Amino acid sequence: MSRVYNFSAGPAVLPLEVLQNAQADLVDYKGCGMSVMEMSHRGKDYDAIHQEAIATFKELCGLGDDWSVCFIQGGASMQFAMIPMNFLGAGQSADYANQGTWSNKALKQAQMIGNVNVVANCQKDIPTRMPANDEFKWTAGAAYSHICTNETISGAELKVIPDSGSPLIGDMSSDILSCERDYSKFTMFYAGAQKNLGPSGMAVVAIRKEFAEKGSTSIPTMLQYRTYVDENSLYNTPPTWGIYIFGETMKWVKKMGKENLFKLNAEKAKKIYDVIDGSGFYRGTALKEYRSNMNVTWRLPTEELEAQFIKEATAAGMKSLKGHRSVGGIRASIYNAFPMAGVDCLVDFMKEFEKKNG
Amino acid sequence: MSRVYNFSAGPAVLPLEVLQNAQADLVDYKGCGMSVMEMSHRGKDYDAIHQEAIATFKELCGLGDDWSVCFIQGGASMQFAMIPMNFLGAGQSADYANQGTWSNKALKQAQMIGNVNVVANCQKDIPTRMPANDEFKWTAGAAYSHICTNETISGAELKVIPDSGSPLIGDMSSDILSCERDYSKFTMFYAGAQKNLGPSGMAVVAIRKEFAEKGSTSIPTMLQYRTYVDENSLYNTPPTWGIYIFGETMKWVKKMGKENLFKLNAEKAKKIYDVIDGSGFYRGTALKEYRSNMNVTWRLPTEELEAQFIKEATAAGMKSLKGHRSVGGIRASIYNAFPMAGVDCLVDFMKEFEKKNG
Repeated sequence: MSRVYNFSAGPAVLPLEVLQNAQADLVDYKGCGMSVMEMSHRGKDYDAIHQEAIATFKELCGLGDDWSVCFIQGGASMQFAMIPMNFLGAGQSADYANQGTWSNKALKQAQMIGNVNVVANCQKDIPTRMPANDEFKWTAGAAYSHICTNETISGAELKVIPDSGSPLIGDMSSDILSCERDYSKFTMFYAGAQKNLGPSGMAVVAIRKEFAEKGSTSIPTMLQYRTYVDENSLYNTPPTWGIYIFGETMKWVKKMGKENLFKLNAEKAKKIYDVIDGSGFYRGTALKEYRSNMNVTWRLPTEELEAQFIKEATAAGMKSLKGHRSVGGIRASIYNAFPMAGVDCLVDFMKEFEKKNG
Repeated sequence: MSRVYNFSAGPAVLPLEVLQNAQADLVDYKGCGMSVMEMSHRGKDYDAIHQEAIATFKELCGLGDDWSVCFIQGGASMQFAMIPMNFLGAGQSADYANQGTWSNKALKQAQMIGNVNVVANCQKDIPTRMPANDEFKWTAGAAYSHICTNETISGAELKVIPDSGSPLIGDMSSDILSCERDYSKFTMFYAGAQKNLGPSGMAVVAIRKEFAEKGSTSIPTMLQYRTYVDENSLYNTPPTWGIYIFGETMKWVKKMGKENLFKLNAEKAKKIYDVIDGSGFYRGTALKEYRSNMNVTWRLPTEELEAQFIKEATAAGMKSLKGHRSVGGIRASIYNAFPMAGVDCLVDFMKEFEKKNG
C-alpha cells in the first residue's frame, strides 16, 4: 500500500485507522453477516451505529438534550435552500454575511425565497479576509442570521463568533470540530460531511429543537427540519454508510482527544504559514488575522511557477494542491485527518522549490 | 466470514463480488494512493468512476443522448417533492396513480404543491394489487403522470406499462433493471439506489433532457433537475462512494448479462410462490397477476406463527423476513443481488416449517 498525501479540499483525507477498520468489516460487519451498506435502517445492528454516531458528535460539541443532530442529504448546498425555505417567511428578513464564495452561494439561495440583508461584504476582497466583528451591520428583528466560519476557497477563517442578536446559523463545512468553538452561541450549525466528518453525501446539521419546530409546515416533508428532528433522521432511508464512517471518525476524534487535535491543527497550519512568511517568494492569500488553519492558500510569483509547483509536488506524492478553479494559486487543505508527516513533506518541498526557483 | 441470507427490503444485499472488490480497494483505490471516499470529485480518478457509472447504466437501460442520468441525494422521497416542484405549475394538474404506500406518499407531496388527479386507487385493497390497464382514468392535458412500477410493501408489481397520454414518470425504486422494461415509454424514471442499484444515499434519476429544461426556474438551484443535467451531477459534491458502488453494481449486471439476470429473478420468485400455492398454510398477499418478483409477501394462519417463523428463520441465518411494520406478515425481498442459494434455503425452511406447524 502506498498512500499519497492528499491535500484535497473535499472530499478529503480520512483517518487511516477509520479506513482500515471499515475495510476489515466491509463484507461482514463485526460478525453480523452483512456489510453496513446492506443493513436495514430499521434493524438493531444499524440502529446502534446511528445512535452512537449522534451521541459521540453531541458529546464532542457539548450539545444538550435541547439540540437535535440530523443527517440531511444534499450537502451544505441543500442547506442553503432549506434554511430560507424553513425560516424566511413572507414579511420577514434574514441577515447574511457575504464572506466569500460559499456564503455568497448561501445568500443567493435565500434571495430566491425572501428578503435578505447583506450585513457585511468582503467576498471579493484581496487579500482575502473575514469581516471584523464591528463590521457586521445586524438587523433588529431578523428571522435569523447566517455566517460561514471558514471559507474553503479564500482560506479565511472567522476567529471570533459574532453576536448577531437573532438566531445564529453557521456554515462550518470546512472547520467544524477543528478548533475550540462555543457552539452554544448558535441556534443551528451545519457542515457538509466531506471535509472534517466523513465521506460526501450528507450534511450534519445540529439544530435547537424549538427552532426546528418554527419552520414552515407548507413545504415538502423532506425539506422540513422537523421531519429529521421528529424521526431522528429515519423518516426515509438515511445515507447509512456515510453515517457509519462519520461515527467512526467521531470516535477517532474522541480517542485522540479533541484538545490534542485542535493543538495539532494549529501546529500544522503554522508550519506552512512560517515558510510563507519567511520567504519573499510565496505570498499568503489571506490577511494574517483571518488565516484559516484548515485551508492554507498562497500564490507564487507567476502562474507558470504555480503550475510547475503543482506538477512537481504531485510527482513527489502530494496531490490536489491546486487552488480552486475560480481563484487559482495553491491551496493546502489540512483537515483533522491530514497527517503531520504530510505537512513536513510539503514544507520541505516548498523550501527546496524556492531555493531552485526563487 | 459467514454471510447470512439478507432478505431486507432496502438497504439490501449487494453482489458479493462488488463488496469484495470494494474491500480490496478501500484504502488505496487501484494504486492511486487514496480511498474513493477521499477523492476530489473534480479530479480525474473520480471522474472516470462517475462517467463509467453513467455510461453503463445508460447502456443497460438502452438510453440515448436525449437522456440524462442524474445522481440526486435524498432517495426516492426527495423525488416525491422535486417532481411537482419542477413540473406542477399554477393552473396545471398532474395524474397520480395511488397503487400502494409509496405512490400514496408521492401523491401527497404533489398535493402540497398543486392540483392532483388520482387516476386509479387500489392503495388499501386486500389482496394487494395494481390497477388494471383499463382502470387508469388519465386526464387529457396533464402536466405529467406518475406511477410506481413495484410497491415494495404490498408486493405488487405492474406488469404492463400504461400509455398515460402525458409525460410518464415512473418510480422504479424496487424493480429497476430487474426485468425487461421498455424505458422509452417514460419521460423520466427514478429509483432510490438502496435496492437494486447500490447503497442508500441517492436516487438515480433518468430524465429526458428536454423535459428537465421545462422545470421551474424559481425554485432553489439544488431542487431543479436542470442543475443536475447541465452539470452532470457535479454542481456540488456528489455522493461519490455511493456512485462508485452503483457503477460497480452496474458492471456486475452487465457482466452477468441482463437477460440471464431477469430470467434468474423470475425463477427465484417462482420457487417461493410455488411453495405458497402448493400449501394450505401460506397465503400470498398479492393477486397472482400482480405478484412482485422482487418483494414476495405472504401471511401465515396466525400472527403468533408469523413471529415464530421469523424467529426460527433468523436463527437459521435468514434475516429481515419480517413484513413492513405497517402491514405485518412475511416479506422476502429478493433483488438482483440476492443469491439463488438463499431462495433454496428459504424454500426448504418454509416446507419444513409447514410440516411441523401446519
